[in-house]
Amino acid sequence: MLSVKIFGAGGYGGVGLIETLLRHPQARIVALVDVADVGRKVSEVWPHLQGFCDLLLVSPQAEEAKAPADIVFCATPDTVGMKVLKGQLAAGAKAVDFSGDFRFRDAQDYAEYAGRLGLPAEHGAPELLPESVYGLTELYRGAIAGARLVGNPGCFAVSLLLGLAPAVKERLVEPEPLFADSKSGISGAGKKPRAAFHYPESYETTYAYRLGGHQHVVEVERVLAELGGSPLRLTFTPHVVPMTRGIASALYGKLAPGITQRRVLEAFRAFYDGEPFVRVFDRDGPCGTGHVRGSNACNLVVACQERNGCFRVLTHIDNLVKGQAGSAVQNMNVMFGLPETMGLDLPGSHP
Amino acid sequence: MLSVKIFGAGGYGGVGLIETLLRHPQARIVALVDVADVGRKVSEVWPHLQGFCDLLLVSPQAEEAKAPADIVFCATPDTVGMKVLKGQLAAGAKAVDFSGDFRFRDAQDYAEYAGRLGLPAEHGAPELLPESVYGLTELYRGAIAGARLVGNPGCFAVSLLLGLAPAVKERLVEPEPLFADSKSGISGAGKKPRAAFHYPESYETTYAYRLGGHQHVVEVERVLAELGGSPLRLTFTPHVVPMTRGIASALYGKLAPGITQRRVLEAFRAFYDGEPFVRVFDRDGPCGTGHVRGSNACNLVVACQERNGCFRVLTHIDNLVKGQAGSAVQNMNVMFGLPETMGLDLPGSHP
Amino acid sequence: MLSVKIFGAGGYGGVGLIETLLRHPQARIVALVDVADVGRKVSEVWPHLQGFCDLLLVSPQAEEAKAPADIVFCATPDTVGMKVLKGQLAAGAKAVDFSGDFRFRDAQDYAEYAGRLGLPAEHGAPELLPESVYGLTELYRGAIAGARLVGNPGCFAVSLLLGLAPAVKERLVEPEPLFADSKSGISGAGKKPRAAFHYPESYETTYAYRLGGHQHVVEVERVLAELGGSPLRLTFTPHVVPMTRGIASALYGKLAPGITQRRVLEAFRAFYDGEPFVRVFDRDGPCGTGHVRGSNACNLVVACQERNGCFRVLTHIDNLVKGQAGSAVQNMNVMFGLPETMGLDLPGSHP
Amino acid sequence: MLSVKIFGAGGYGGVGLIETLLRHPQARIVALVDVADVGRKVSEVWPHLQGFCDLLLVSPQAEEAKAPADIVFCATPDTVGMKVLKGQLAAGAKAVDFSGDFRFRDAQDYAEYAGRLGLPAEHGAPELLPESVYGLTELYRGAIAGARLVGNPGCFAVSLLLGLAPAVKERLVEPEPLFADSKSGISGAGKKPRAAFHYPESYETTYAYRLGGHQHVVEVERVLAELGGSPLRLTFTPHVVPMTRGIASALYGKLAPGITQRRVLEAFRAFYDGEPFVRVFDRDGPCGTGHVRGSNACNLVVACQERNGCFRVLTHIDNLVKGQAGSAVQNMNVMFGLPETMGLDLPGSHP
Repeated sequence: MLSVKIFGAGGYGGVGLIETLLRHPQARIVALVDVADVGRKVSEVWPHLQGFCDLLLVSPQAEEAKAPADIVFCATPDTVGMKVLKGQLAAGAKAVDFSGDFRFRDAQDYAEYAGRLGLPAEHGAPELLPESVYGLTELYRGAIAGARLVGNPGCFAVSLLLGLAPAVKERLVEPEPLFADSKSGISGAGKKPRAAFHYPESYETTYAYRLGGHQHVVEVERVLAELGGSPLRLTFTPHVVPMTRGIASALYGKLAPGITQRRVLEAFRAFYDGEPFVRVFDRDGPCGTGHVRGSNACNLVVACQERNGCFRVLTHIDNLVKGQAGSAVQNMNVMFGLPETMGLDLPGSHP
Repeated sequence: MLSVKIFGAGGYGGVGLIETLLRHPQARIVALVDVADVGRKVSEVWPHLQGFCDLLLVSPQAEEAKAPADIVFCATPDTVGMKVLKGQLAAGAKAVDFSGDFRFRDAQDYAEYAGRLGLPAEHGAPELLPESVYGLTELYRGAIAGARLVGNPGCFAVSLLLGLAPAVKERLVEPEPLFADSKSGISGAGKKPRAAFHYPESYETTYAYRLGGHQHVVEVERVLAELGGSPLRLTFTPHVVPMTRGIASALYGKLAPGITQRRVLEAFRAFYDGEPFVRVFDRDGPCGTGHVRGSNACNLVVACQERNGCFRVLTHIDNLVKGQAGSAVQNMNVMFGLPETMGLDLPGSHP
Repeated sequence: MLSVKIFGAGGYGGVGLIETLLRHPQARIVALVDVADVGRKVSEVWPHLQGFCDLLLVSPQAEEAKAPADIVFCATPDTVGMKVLKGQLAAGAKAVDFSGDFRFRDAQDYAEYAGRLGLPAEHGAPELLPESVYGLTELYRGAIAGARLVGNPGCFAVSLLLGLAPAVKERLVEPEPLFADSKSGISGAGKKPRAAFHYPESYETTYAYRLGGHQHVVEVERVLAELGGSPLRLTFTPHVVPMTRGIASALYGKLAPGITQRRVLEAFRAFYDGEPFVRVFDRDGPCGTGHVRGSNACNLVVACQERNGCFRVLTHIDNLVKGQAGSAVQNMNVMFGLPETMGLDLPGSHP
Repeated sequence: MLSVKIFGAGGYGGVGLIETLLRHPQARIVALVDVADVGRKVSEVWPHLQGFCDLLLVSPQAEEAKAPADIVFCATPDTVGMKVLKGQLAAGAKAVDFSGDFRFRDAQDYAEYAGRLGLPAEHGAPELLPESVYGLTELYRGAIAGARLVGNPGCFAVSLLLGLAPAVKERLVEPEPLFADSKSGISGAGKKPRAAFHYPESYETTYAYRLGGHQHVVEVERVLAELGGSPLRLTFTPHVVPMTRGIASALYGKLAPGITQRRVLEAFRAFYDGEPFVRVFDRDGPCGTGHVRGSNACNLVVACQERNGCFRVLTHIDNLVKGQAGSAVQNMNVMFGLPETMGLDLPGSHP
């Protein structure tokens, strides 16, 4: 039985972890840490948890926050994990961080990421970067199995990389131009109210944002460069659509010479063969974020357009599950040698 | 391990059952029956089930539909269960029916119900009525434990009865006038497309319907009369609001002489003491269907207004869980002596 | 041509006024005043106005805010109008205030209202109260025609009073108990982001609030007492449903002896005969807020339930039009002897 | 004063026309024709029109349908206009058709279009094709002014062409690859209920469809070929997002050599200089369909990404206004020499 601590328990990442861990037979939450609502039961903050998890939220300075645990999740904003995790790791814990703090082994890459968010370029715990592992399980399973510190990927990055990785690795697509057009539910922005996410401002509107360059592009380009053997540059347009959960991404490029829809489909099927959470469909398969709501699945549709030689793949995830807490628990399972689907083997609910 | 058959597996009631039973450690689905999509995998109809439940849908005439099972759920429209269940019971199964077919022991009551829907007044299996038990577990647990045939309550009825039963039984409220004002998500209407539920017609609108008398009133009045010892007549206004899941009901009446908010609160707490799925809150407690989404809970808020002697209780359920599949599995657990929360001990997910 | 100034131009009340006045042939906006976004074009705050209204937002201290105008709208929160309007009236303007500041002739009534909101009981301009007129046009048209200062009604109050006024006045309903159950879109809360109205918290949830007593009850009870000749006390439950615009209210009571559905229907038809914005329907008429979205109409459905002697009327308005800016312009028209429907003679749009 | 007849008055295109024409000072509706709801008032079908337009719906065989009019709108499905309009034109009317029937001068082009929909390749009134004019006003204003028969563009086509036309014409973008990724509200599918648009199936899901090739691509490619002087082939992915109105399209390609964001922006501003309904913004301008809801505007954001030489333009329209009824009335104004903005000079409403 793993003892688990969650930093940022009061946010959407935290509540997603709690829900998932409640049905995980080998995990037991021992502390819920946050800077807000300290001293209140987590079930007062999230009333649906009443009777299921009624632990108190404790401050990062509390004893419970410092007591040892097998694994620590930092479901916290950028720059928190780099402050918190040094001590936790030293005390023997393993850790998964939800922010960009540990998605880069290289301080340069981190600086580029930080720059896109207006954060200080200097990393707060650079000595930890070299051992950190990028937590997209399907691509880095081996390294994650041996890791002490995993940087959980950005939700958009999950959605882009699962659709582009096989194509770049197998050279099915030209390295440029590459376009990614994503449509995200609003929960990706977290629980803090903002003018743009006020219900009357959000309903009935679809809009693109961060047209100057979204920070998740950095990790996507780094991973794809690693897979493809040479740098590449993406044009990424994140959109917000009036829904709460889900990311649908359309990935566009030019088919490499001689590559057909059938070839791409076969390559993707081979690449994801045996993966418990990736379902590959031909263009007539079920499409839409609704089919992965509440589950750790990524539904992937291969839909190239041969008449003009265009590569096109569509991916669908629940941003709060495969895009966040689900991936985190999947990584925990791998880090501790547990069956990868443990706690994650539910289909979500419909409608 | 119970073997389970589901009739109407392709509808919202059916998929809710499948999702719930997938996490039930003592149940195994042996047949999924429907009249549509026969021969297709259920996971083609409901793609989120792929890899979790890939059984074929079979017709009611198929061998699998007739083979014995421990329990048969009829998640079917009115008048189907009365045709199907005779044989299933004779073959040794127990049964839970989702329609109005077995909510009444008395053929007269059924006829009144049927009349509101324009159905034939005559019941198709009247010999089964006397043994049928009304499946609101919190009120009829004892009878359900010994029952072979349970009529699962209507979703509005669950929402009304949980809020009114203690008040009527303990005579906290005058028997008249009684008003029930419910706000339901659209999934309560089932999966069949209709003009009123076409997205562009449903969004941004709240409306009342069946102002001449909703059929669920019949069972509510019957149960309350039983509890209160004398007949009473409800004014019920069901509304549809632009959401998919959830029913919020406000229940209004006049406080009986001398009855206060505190007294009502205490009585409700006593009535539901030990109930695993009913949470009673004082007026400052969390209010809203969002807190019970995806769970079998009923959140109940006592909020009488003493300055004019008015009784007011608000109830919140997920119409597809406590209002349908969740109650059905709760009843199955009781019928087979299993822990009542088995398969139902999850809080839903937020947001 | 009337010159118009709007205080609070940057809020939902303000933008609604601007949109309405843009199509009003006898009104010309001369100043848009606000405390936020001062110096920006209103069309930067509300981009849909670009090319239609590109005035700068000025501060209340600016010359433009002080310059004379025929009419001043205060689309501002409580306690602003009482500070602003003294000077404006003195300078010769007429005024319509959107808050509770001028809904009461009596300082006692105001104090009760203020108390429900935790505001100081003392009014900032008590000398203006006696001449203020309650701006529900259908009930106070005569007084409004002669008024210099109108207190626009609360959105819930419009929705309740239009449904109760004829019944109370004509003694169709017993004075008690009276219940009002309202379902409001979220825009009623204004444009300021709050946790409860963050999209992921608002979608898929219906909840009641202010169970201790909503402030709009005060004006409703005062008006009904005036109409009915004796005090009465309402039980009011406001709900928020996941939509942006619209209020549906269900009004419940006991039919007075001998009163039938037909009698109520006839009385309501007579009461609203000739009213341009109130449509009275029998229970089979169109029901729902969707039919009044974007229009100044109130759709009213009479649906008493005779079998238990219950009065029931349902009203539907757009909270931002008939519940706010539309009523305000309707009042302006009456105050200046213009045709009452001027600028308001559009049906809204569907879907 | 123009006399107007509308075929298909009972659909979303029809109601949009009625709403627009109600505020058009030079138009008077003389007949509303449909095949459903014949004999009912249009205000029974669309209750918000009560008191504004209470005409009866007549069948295409009725006298009123045949009586002369200045202009006939066919807001009807494919293949209806080609049957109806021959006679109407012969009787002296001008006409605007909403379907694909008259978007092509060439029967070959029509056959390709029809093939994508599984319609017969042969056109029902081929003799009318040569005089038909494609009704995207911004591109074909001159021809429309002299036209008797206008084929109103498809909603996606409006959204794609406004964003691509200047780039292709001015050779700012390489002719290939070109990608268009659109996100549409559900009203684009019309008012007929379908399983995919049942509210519980539509909420909380974003999905792509017609991955084999959407029919609007045909007209887009034809127009762009005309503008650019050589054929080109688009990869188009239409998505449905959970909203009712609006299309946001992202248009991607490779910048032609030497072309910068600034150059594209200037070219677009020059191209649309003086256009009443197209607003061109730099990448920091307001983005989103919410800003054009209910208006005939197209908001266009130029957001090229120079670091990898990518062209990117985003367009936003209301699919039922600029994408349908608004464009139709704009065309009518041009055809009759009226001011182009007549009846269309309103900003929509917010929120």
